[in-house]
Amino acid sequence: MERIERILQRINFKSDGLVPVATQDEKTGQVLMLAYMNREALERTLSTGKMHYFRRAVGRLWCKGEESGKFQYVKAVRVNCYADSLLFLVDQVDAACHEGYFSCYFREFDEEGNLHVIAERIFDPDEVYKKK
Amino acid sequence: MERIERILQRINFKSDGLVPVATQDEKTGQVLMLAYMNREALERTLSTGKMHYFRRAVGRLWCKGEESGKFQYVKAVRVNCYADSLLFLVDQVDAACHEGYFSCYFREFDEEGNLHVIAERIFDPDEVYKKK
Repeated sequence: MERIERILQRINFKSDGLVPVATQDEKTGQVLMLAYMNREALERTLSTGKMHYFRRAVGRLWCKGEESGKFQYVKAVRVNCYADSLLFLVDQVDAACHEGYFSCYFREFDEEGNLHVIAERIFDPDEVYKKK
Repeated sequence: MERIERILQRINFKSDGLVPVATQDEKTGQVLMLAYMNREALERTLSTGKMHYFRRAVGRLWCKGEESGKFQYVKAVRVNCYADSLLFLVDQVDAACHEGYFSCYFREFDEEGNLHVIAERIFDPDEVYKKK
């Protein structure tokens, strides 16, 4: 049996066909984003070594970095105790967030409940996502 | 306005009333688990300083550690770019996983697609979750 088929068989996709995924940068340990995969997204991720997600908002497969070039290269694939969520360790090119920050979690709540940016911008979104 | 109300207002709960949450151990950087919160779970988490989740499988609020004593104490609350997912940094008591491992992601797929345990057991589940 193929590696990919073997992995797919172990994952408990929810009734909507999706599994939640946390993506962590291998070098820094930073959690980059949290998203979803369907079977096809997981297959493509495993076959290409680049993270693919299923974008629920637009209902389609999405190769992270397809527009920006900021790919995430898979370093390790882990599964939780119930096999109903995944943790990927990746090598993140430049930065993960479409707003130009390394992690999508670039804001933190303070003691008063106000949000503060806690990271520096790595790239300018207007440059990377050219306005058409 | 109260801190908790201010935070709740910033979160984009999905149509099912839930928001996905990644929980990371502050000291080690390990991703411990991935779960969901509804408004009440987030309120309780913020008011008590202990992680509360909404268990979809049983449809109820769950204080992590309520049975095992393995609480997760909140150290920081971060939100992603779309404010539709959360990252909590926590101080994990002993271990997060009900199988006795520090992280629920204690297994990794190898090059052949086989799963391997990559961590050591911290506690014996039979001892902690006494059979009644």
